[in-house]
Amino acid sequence: MAERKRRSDFEDRNKPELQEGVVAGRNAVLEALKRPEGVEKIFILRGGHEGSIVRIIALAKEKKINVQECDRVKLEFLTGSQNHQGVAAYLRQKDYCTVDDILACARERGEPPLIVVADEIADPHNLGAIIRTADACGAHGVIIPRHRGVGVTPAVSKSSAGAVVHVNIAKVTNLSQTLAELKEKGLWVYGTDGAARDCVFDVDLTGPAAIVIGSEGAGMSRLVSEHCDFRLKIPMYGEVNSLNASVAAGVLLFETVRQRRFSKGVL
Amino acid sequence: MAERKRRSDFEDRNKPELQEGVVAGRNAVLEALKRPEGVEKIFILRGGHEGSIVRIIALAKEKKINVQECDRVKLEFLTGSQNHQGVAAYLRQKDYCTVDDILACARERGEPPLIVVADEIADPHNLGAIIRTADACGAHGVIIPRHRGVGVTPAVSKSSAGAVVHVNIAKVTNLSQTLAELKEKGLWVYGTDGAARDCVFDVDLTGPAAIVIGSEGAGMSRLVSEHCDFRLKIPMYGEVNSLNASVAAGVLLFETVRQRRFSKGVL
Repeated sequence: MAERKRRSDFEDRNKPELQEGVVAGRNAVLEALKRPEGVEKIFILRGGHEGSIVRIIALAKEKKINVQECDRVKLEFLTGSQNHQGVAAYLRQKDYCTVDDILACARERGEPPLIVVADEIADPHNLGAIIRTADACGAHGVIIPRHRGVGVTPAVSKSSAGAVVHVNIAKVTNLSQTLAELKEKGLWVYGTDGAARDCVFDVDLTGPAAIVIGSEGAGMSRLVSEHCDFRLKIPMYGEVNSLNASVAAGVLLFETVRQRRFSKGVL
Repeated sequence: MAERKRRSDFEDRNKPELQEGVVAGRNAVLEALKRPEGVEKIFILRGGHEGSIVRIIALAKEKKINVQECDRVKLEFLTGSQNHQGVAAYLRQKDYCTVDDILACARERGEPPLIVVADEIADPHNLGAIIRTADACGAHGVIIPRHRGVGVTPAVSKSSAGAVVHVNIAKVTNLSQTLAELKEKGLWVYGTDGAARDCVFDVDLTGPAAIVIGSEGAGMSRLVSEHCDFRLKIPMYGEVNSLNASVAAGVLLFETVRQRRFSKGVL
C-alpha cells in the first residue's frame, strides 16, 4: 500500500488509462467471454477467487483460455482508473490459424515454406518485432506456444506496427510435437545456438524451413533444441555473447531472404 | 522484488529515465564489473544479499569498488522505471569517447573502420539493442547525436545487456558535420532508405564504413540522408513497409559481417 501511495505521488498527472484491448470488471469480462474467440487471457487478483470470479474461471477453463493471477499493481496498470473488481481480460487481437493454414499459404504462393517459430518469447516488444520481421521477409507464418511466452496482446500488436493483422499466426500446445510434424512434412528445422559449430552464413537456407527463435534469457528450450536439424550460431565478435531475440530473428530471416534471392538469380 | 518486475514488464518503456551513467539490474552490473575501470560505485538494496548479488559484492570487493546499501526509494530514484533487481551501479565517467578514439580503435585492430551512427533513435529499447548489436558485430564504435534522440540512460544500458560498457560511444553536436569529416577520412557512409534503388545485399560493404540507422518514425533526417554515399533498402515482401530500427541495424550490420568474413576467405 505504501508503495502504491508513493507511485501515485509521482504519477498522479499521468494516471494510466484503460489499456487498449483490455476490458475491466466482472460483467465486462463475462460479456467478453460470451463472444466466441473473444478473450486472449484473463488476469485475476491474487486470492480473489470469490463471487462471479469463480464463474469467470470456470468459463475460461471450458474455453481453454489462460487465466493468470496477478497483484493489484499490475491489475491497476492494465485497467487504469477503471473499477476492475479484481478481474481484467485481454480481448483477442487476432484470429489464430493452424499450422496447416501456414503450409497452405506457402503452397499457394508456390514457395518453399518459411515458418518462424517463436519459442517462449516473453517480451511483447520482442514478439511484436519478430512478427513484423516475419511479415517483412515474406514468411508464411509464425508459430507460438499456447502456454509459454506472451500471446498476441495489444502491446505485441503495437510493437509489430500492425503486422499481426497480416501474418498467419498459429498457437500450438506442444511445440516439440509441431516441429516433429513439420519435419515429417519435409521442412528443415533451424535454431540459433551460441555454442553451435555451424555459422548461419554457411548453411543452405533455401529449402523448406522452420526457423526457431529462442527466448530472451535461456535461448531455445532443450526439447525444442533437440528437434533442430541445424543449430546455427550468429558469429559474435564482442563482449556480450548474444543478440536481442528480435535482432537475431532479423539476421537469420534476412540471411534466408538473401540466399533465396540469390538462388533465384535476383541480383 | 516480484512486484517491481511485473511493473516494469507492463509499464511504458519511454517513461522518463533518471540518472544517466547508471546501470540497473544484476546482469548489467556484472557486465560492467568485467571492465577493470568500469564501475564507480554500487548500490544494493538493503537486506538483498542473495543470488548473484553475492557475486557482485565479492567482485566489487576484489576490485576495491565501493558498495553501498540503500533503500528502495533511492534505488528507484537512480534507476527510473527500470527493473533494478536490487542492484545498480554508477559507471565510471569514461562513458563517451571521441570519434577519433573510434577510428583509433579500428587502426589498432588493423581493420577497416565500422562505425554505427544512430540518427535520433528515441526508444531506449531500440538504442540499447543497436549498441548490443554493434558490440556483437565487432563495430569499432557508435555515434549518437548530443541533442536529439535518447542518451545512454539506464534503460538503454539494460536493453544493451551491458554492452554500453564495452562499446566506444561518441556523442556529437552536429551529426552531418561528423559524417562529412568521416567521408574526408576515407569512410563510405551508408544509410537505410525504403525508397532506395540499391539493395543492401548487392552493395560492397567491406570497405571503411559508417552505417546510419534512421529513427523509428521518419527514418534518417534529410541532412543526414544527403551525406550518405549509398542509400540502401532492405527488401520488403510483406504488408508493413519497414522494420524495427534495431532489427534493421542487425540486418545491415551482419550483412557487413558476412561480406567481410567472405572477403577474408572465412568459409
